[in-house]
Amino acid sequence: MTARSFLSGLECRACCTTVEPDRLIGVCPTCGHTLLATYDLEGARAVLAPAGWTARPGGMWRYRELLPVRSADSVVTLGEPESPVLRLTLPDLAPDVDLWAKNDGALPTGAFKSREMSVALSRARELGARAVFLPSTGNAAVAAAAYGARARMEVRVYLTEDSAPELAATCRAFGAHVRTVRGTISDARAAALDQEPGRGSVELSTMREPYRLEGTKTMAFEVFDRFGADGLPDVIVYPTGGGLGLAGMFKAFTELRALGWIEAIPRLIAVQAAECAPLVRALRDGSPRAEAWPGPIEFLGGLTVPAPFASERVLEAVRWSGGAGVAVPSARIHATERLVARTTGIVSGFEGAATFAALPAILKEGLVRPGERVMLYLTGGGISVAIPRLAERAEAPGLPTRS
Amino acid sequence: MTARSFLSGLECRACCTTVEPDRLIGVCPTCGHTLLATYDLEGARAVLAPAGWTARPGGMWRYRELLPVRSADSVVTLGEPESPVLRLTLPDLAPDVDLWAKNDGALPTGAFKSREMSVALSRARELGARAVFLPSTGNAAVAAAAYGARARMEVRVYLTEDSAPELAATCRAFGAHVRTVRGTISDARAAALDQEPGRGSVELSTMREPYRLEGTKTMAFEVFDRFGADGLPDVIVYPTGGGLGLAGMFKAFTELRALGWIEAIPRLIAVQAAECAPLVRALRDGSPRAEAWPGPIEFLGGLTVPAPFASERVLEAVRWSGGAGVAVPSARIHATERLVARTTGIVSGFEGAATFAALPAILKEGLVRPGERVMLYLTGGGISVAIPRLAERAEAPGLPTRS
Repeated sequence: MTARSFLSGLECRACCTTVEPDRLIGVCPTCGHTLLATYDLEGARAVLAPAGWTARPGGMWRYRELLPVRSADSVVTLGEPESPVLRLTLPDLAPDVDLWAKNDGALPTGAFKSREMSVALSRARELGARAVFLPSTGNAAVAAAAYGARARMEVRVYLTEDSAPELAATCRAFGAHVRTVRGTISDARAAALDQEPGRGSVELSTMREPYRLEGTKTMAFEVFDRFGADGLPDVIVYPTGGGLGLAGMFKAFTELRALGWIEAIPRLIAVQAAECAPLVRALRDGSPRAEAWPGPIEFLGGLTVPAPFASERVLEAVRWSGGAGVAVPSARIHATERLVARTTGIVSGFEGAATFAALPAILKEGLVRPGERVMLYLTGGGISVAIPRLAERAEAPGLPTRS
Repeated sequence: MTARSFLSGLECRACCTTVEPDRLIGVCPTCGHTLLATYDLEGARAVLAPAGWTARPGGMWRYRELLPVRSADSVVTLGEPESPVLRLTLPDLAPDVDLWAKNDGALPTGAFKSREMSVALSRARELGARAVFLPSTGNAAVAAAAYGARARMEVRVYLTEDSAPELAATCRAFGAHVRTVRGTISDARAAALDQEPGRGSVELSTMREPYRLEGTKTMAFEVFDRFGADGLPDVIVYPTGGGLGLAGMFKAFTELRALGWIEAIPRLIAVQAAECAPLVRALRDGSPRAEAWPGPIEFLGGLTVPAPFASERVLEAVRWSGGAGVAVPSARIHATERLVARTTGIVSGFEGAATFAALPAILKEGLVRPGERVMLYLTGGGISVAIPRLAERAEAPGLPTRS
């Protein structure tokens, strides 16, 4: 990897503070909002071409000029492939639509969180971090643990108690320190902030450091790479918890537009479970930010984020793209997950199933027009339950014998 | 997909019978041995170039000229990505070796079986099959079920009783019919042969139809595609149950040599668990075929194949490549699996861990020389345990609530 990153700085969209990027930093030192990475897009435009990306081996590090890691030696990778893109024919669910799915279940930790943690841990290591921590409902923790093992960095995760126990075991198998916390992901973060000071560790919570967002940009780069400017989906339907992926995809498409490579940005549709839909409510109400969703809330995997941080960035991504928000009852999502497996062979996970389940409402509300190209973004969430069997075996006195 | 397949026929290496390929067929009609697909390699050579493959989107269908499916419309795909390739530094396990791993855990059903079933079901559908069946220890059944759902074909699997119960649930979630059978995979096949006649179903047992083998060729094509002729691994270490992957990779490298694209073929090293090592024993004894391994045998996942069919094809692949066989005690494989997760972030599975566990013996026996490039082939086996949670939810009266 000889191409260089065109990272030029960090900026706060809330208060316009700019920050020199080559030191460890979390949120804006002035106002505490999210810092976003900026790039020398003029410089990149002079040397970059889409064909140059396509000529490289597939996967997210193909796009290294628009990722924030300075040195090839810093890259922490588990060999992320380009995630699969599939055309689907589901006349019952979505007639008259040119329907596609992109499935991040193929990524090394079975979910799109691989993208975030590959970039965030690469950059943290590059800037001198030796230990990281984060609160999580599950998949982000597994990804941090796996990439931490690859990077030989210390990882401490604060998991919500309702997360599948397999996720904790998986994190431990990767050598991470795990603490489970009663309550929501906000409570898990509070526990982390109570325990971590003095440990020299770096926080990797969603939107509270600049680089996980950069990793999610590669979802949009891959869509562009596969479909080209003329074939981009009209609409991308995205299962939304904290909304980092929406903000990242919108930033990526904006950068591609600044490079002159695309004209229109796909309309981004945020799907949440009706039982916890703070971003969808804010989109429908025209609010500038999402208010915390009142509890109690049933556990809905990665969609259980009642109080997303820096929701302004997510809401602007959806609005500026011309998109919208749609909420679907969780019972319908569960039923759809089974239907999807049986009729497509795809392991969508609960989160991915939400995008299928939202299709009838999306069509009914006219958010998609007949003949438009629609991409369901399946964020994954499967493989993480594999490792516990390994952990179980570690304790098992012997293996079953048969004749 | 406009490029055509150069499939020219089927041949039996045991009795030299040749068969017209464009009808449904299992084994050699003359002697009952495995039929192998042949290609018009002269014709392919005139129009194909490695750069032509590389220019296409990544993944196994990039190599369609040397796959047996005639029509693009027949292809049953879940969007298989090129599987990740990783460089590893493990001085304790393999000093002085240029060590790499290729991880098929990224494939849609979490294991290399996706390759086999994508090709076999495509071809079966193309030739008019509407239903298929197979015996399996697990991952092949999951792949058949997933691709069957995608193809809207009927799938019936006969699982060994010792297979993880999650595998049966996963197959059912994909809509497959599942029967569990006490005993080995041979017993499972006997049950299938008892039940299937009259159902109009096609058998997809290992080496008993020609096309799963063709799918495994894509492992070698991807290695060639990634490393180039000059950078090919000197040695590929492969976890071996029935050995289909070894026979397929050898066939692929032989085809690439016939095309004039490579000169040397990597030496193939078959790794088996010491508790069930019929192929390794035959390699060490110089036997032309593997004798059945005597029971009782503990369950060792995909490595539990005590009586591999058509072992001649596997043994010749290893021998003609200049390779060898190595057996490792299963206890050491289990311990290595944990070590691999903690030190690399890779979910190797038991089968993949066997290749790491074999490294000390491989080096001690001089099967690899210092400085040589060694690739561990990780066949996967993780994601299939994801779906059962979905199945559980189907029965669950409600979801946990929290405040």
